[in-house]
Amino acid sequence: MKEDFLYNRIAQNIANKIKTGVLKTGEKLPSVRILSKEHGISINTSKKVFLELESQSLIQSKPQSGYFVSPLHYLKLPLPETSKPSLVADNREPNELIDRVYSNMGNHELTLFSIGVPSGNLLPLAKLKKEIVLATRSLKDGGTEYESLLGNLKLRRMIAVRSLAWGGALKETDLITTNGCMNSIALCLMALTKPGDTIALESPCYPGILQLAVSMGLKVLEVATHPVSGIDIDAFEQLLPEINICLLVPNFNTPLGYCMSDENKKRIVTLLEKYNIPLIEDDTYGDLYFGTERPKCCKSFDTTGNVLWCSSVSKTLAPGYRAGWVAPGKYKDQIIKLKLIHSISSSAIIHEAVGNFLMTGRHDNHLRRLRKTLQQNYQHYALAIVEYFPLGTKISRPQGGLTLWIEFPVEIDTTELYNHALKNKISIAPGRMFSLQNQFQNCMRLCMGLPWTEDLKLKLKQLGNLAKMI
Amino acid sequence: MKEDFLYNRIAQNIANKIKTGVLKTGEKLPSVRILSKEHGISINTSKKVFLELESQSLIQSKPQSGYFVSPLHYLKLPLPETSKPSLVADNREPNELIDRVYSNMGNHELTLFSIGVPSGNLLPLAKLKKEIVLATRSLKDGGTEYESLLGNLKLRRMIAVRSLAWGGALKETDLITTNGCMNSIALCLMALTKPGDTIALESPCYPGILQLAVSMGLKVLEVATHPVSGIDIDAFEQLLPEINICLLVPNFNTPLGYCMSDENKKRIVTLLEKYNIPLIEDDTYGDLYFGTERPKCCKSFDTTGNVLWCSSVSKTLAPGYRAGWVAPGKYKDQIIKLKLIHSISSSAIIHEAVGNFLMTGRHDNHLRRLRKTLQQNYQHYALAIVEYFPLGTKISRPQGGLTLWIEFPVEIDTTELYNHALKNKISIAPGRMFSLQNQFQNCMRLCMGLPWTEDLKLKLKQLGNLAKMI
Repeated sequence: MKEDFLYNRIAQNIANKIKTGVLKTGEKLPSVRILSKEHGISINTSKKVFLELESQSLIQSKPQSGYFVSPLHYLKLPLPETSKPSLVADNREPNELIDRVYSNMGNHELTLFSIGVPSGNLLPLAKLKKEIVLATRSLKDGGTEYESLLGNLKLRRMIAVRSLAWGGALKETDLITTNGCMNSIALCLMALTKPGDTIALESPCYPGILQLAVSMGLKVLEVATHPVSGIDIDAFEQLLPEINICLLVPNFNTPLGYCMSDENKKRIVTLLEKYNIPLIEDDTYGDLYFGTERPKCCKSFDTTGNVLWCSSVSKTLAPGYRAGWVAPGKYKDQIIKLKLIHSISSSAIIHEAVGNFLMTGRHDNHLRRLRKTLQQNYQHYALAIVEYFPLGTKISRPQGGLTLWIEFPVEIDTTELYNHALKNKISIAPGRMFSLQNQFQNCMRLCMGLPWTEDLKLKLKQLGNLAKMI
Repeated sequence: MKEDFLYNRIAQNIANKIKTGVLKTGEKLPSVRILSKEHGISINTSKKVFLELESQSLIQSKPQSGYFVSPLHYLKLPLPETSKPSLVADNREPNELIDRVYSNMGNHELTLFSIGVPSGNLLPLAKLKKEIVLATRSLKDGGTEYESLLGNLKLRRMIAVRSLAWGGALKETDLITTNGCMNSIALCLMALTKPGDTIALESPCYPGILQLAVSMGLKVLEVATHPVSGIDIDAFEQLLPEINICLLVPNFNTPLGYCMSDENKKRIVTLLEKYNIPLIEDDTYGDLYFGTERPKCCKSFDTTGNVLWCSSVSKTLAPGYRAGWVAPGKYKDQIIKLKLIHSISSSAIIHEAVGNFLMTGRHDNHLRRLRKTLQQNYQHYALAIVEYFPLGTKISRPQGGLTLWIEFPVEIDTTELYNHALKNKISIAPGRMFSLQNQFQNCMRLCMGLPWTEDLKLKLKQLGNLAKMI
């Protein structure tokens, strides 16, 4: 067990050094024997470290010479620009485009690069089925009764336990279950805003959040966001006097996939407390880190209950289950009331099943596998993009999560690309969906949650060729 | 089969004649032989008719003389008054009281007269469990995928088929699934109102709807409502110029349980069309009729798509499942969009299971049994109330549904009664919960969805005694 832990830790550390350029292309790594001595691990464990790194295409062995850092082609591709949204709230909702893209949901004839969830092949389907059956047996009256107001106890208890890993230290009574993370966010916005209020969001931003804000009559301020460090806090601070509420996705935000530093998280929490602006934190992707540790949340630094921490199992376990939750801090009473009058209860069976699954060790095993697959996919995608996409293409450097953000040269309109791609049975998410302003027309989001195959590589090649023809 | 149908029909007809006073207490019924001849049924079927009526305590046999109409004691109790709410919108939300009553939800140490759902003993639990297991097998990826935008196809198809029974003639594409009827209503109100708008509601009205309207910043106009014929349409017509939206529960409305006549339903639909006011119709109780036929809905008379018809299985099959739907007429696009941004999808497994259950004949068998039980409970309750409740008590005459409305003499405050009852492990729903005005302080709602037992009778006796002591 201890060896397993060490092996993972060492492999991840070396992987990070390679990806961040501390170890450079072509550099020689220490031998199996030296690594074993250095870390006090067995020769076998040491060998496993190298095999793991090789499986991730990060190193390659040369006969009689040892292991060397592989060329990471995608590091040659530049980063997308920091976004430069207008400082004035805008409302140009790309409804028609969003409708078209969303209507592809569930169409299995298409390659759905446009979705933002892991595909079924990456989920523990058999184990989940068993939990559902068990839940119909363990619940009183087979789960036909309404749940208590806060929602399923096992689920809340497990989320509370897991919050220790990121410094949340939540209790089960700090949590309210919901029908998924978007439902949590909707409840928070309904509780804390009125039409005409101004909300600050990252830019680019998940389209559902933009649409939700607009539907509630909110003014949307999109804040300049760097693809690796996240929201520009200095720009953000300037805007605070105009802002009533703020919604951020600091961990592996879709589409960019960055992870805000602890320092910035803390600074944001302090700033918002000072201005008495509630922070809704969407942490749906928090468990999908590519690094060695589960990142902290803004909620980790919340001492006054001003952060409403929202998440779900939709990106890690089962999108179609609709199991989410919120730790609403000092706004708990309002959220409970709104949950009750908007939907009374959640689906008792489903939430019991998820709660039970989280109590087994299977969940962590599953997450480990899923993270590894996503990280490998990222590299496969990146290498394919280097090879097949037009000159001048820029790509994000996700540190976790499910999506990759592509910035093409300005002349490539991704809404046009969407139309061409669809004819070839490929669906993408054009950049324009991620803003209420005329931004990101030359960008797109790709889902990394599809299983990597030769066919998928071919689809990326096809997509690259179509982009070159525009 | 044909005999079965006739037997039911004849028994129901006679029952209705007794309950409406066409056949009077003590009146002699025709003999088994004459009934058999009159309707062209066998002697055995004719006997079954009388046994059925006897089991409902509607008739009693006297040796050597035949069958006679039983004394229906509760008909001696007067009807509650037609409500007289203020013509000015009010906003005195009984939050604290509602919180206290709702916090008893799921507390199995209490006798929950306060709930508005059938208890588990009255539900087809084993069959539902089987459907859940089957759904995890039949759905792609075990139901972990998001559903399509409109929601589960089987469920929509079956609701469409069943709509033929009430003149709905809906197609599966006219329907959108939701997380229960309150969720349907919430989506409709979000789509069609803005803060400051005025909504017209029946009075007394289900507390969840009052709270929902207030939470959305709506002005609530409570309309005078007769306990048997429903909303006072002349009073209602006067108010129309002030109203932006209307929400009615024309079939077995909780708490009163009346059924609006077809004539009135039609008139309301025509009036609202004329004034261009959308009608949200809550039909959750529509399948729980005590008469011979499923009543029509306002939606049955809707020719322009102005009625948003909402319902669920929460009152008939499984409250904790969260399976509802809406046929939003011409407002379909807005509802789809709001469903998507508020919760993306429903719980795929649960909705598939309900859809499959509705496809079997079991659902109709279950409903027949449930209706019969509720109707018998109504009579048990009514007789106990005659016997145990204070002089001057008035009770509603539910024609279906799950609840009974009690009006005590004015000096009996039911919020006080609630406190005393709770000490005796009985929970009731005090009348004040059903209005935003100072109304109904001497009223309460009783749930008839608990299985009738000697113990339950004793609890009603206890409740009556407590009321007498106030």
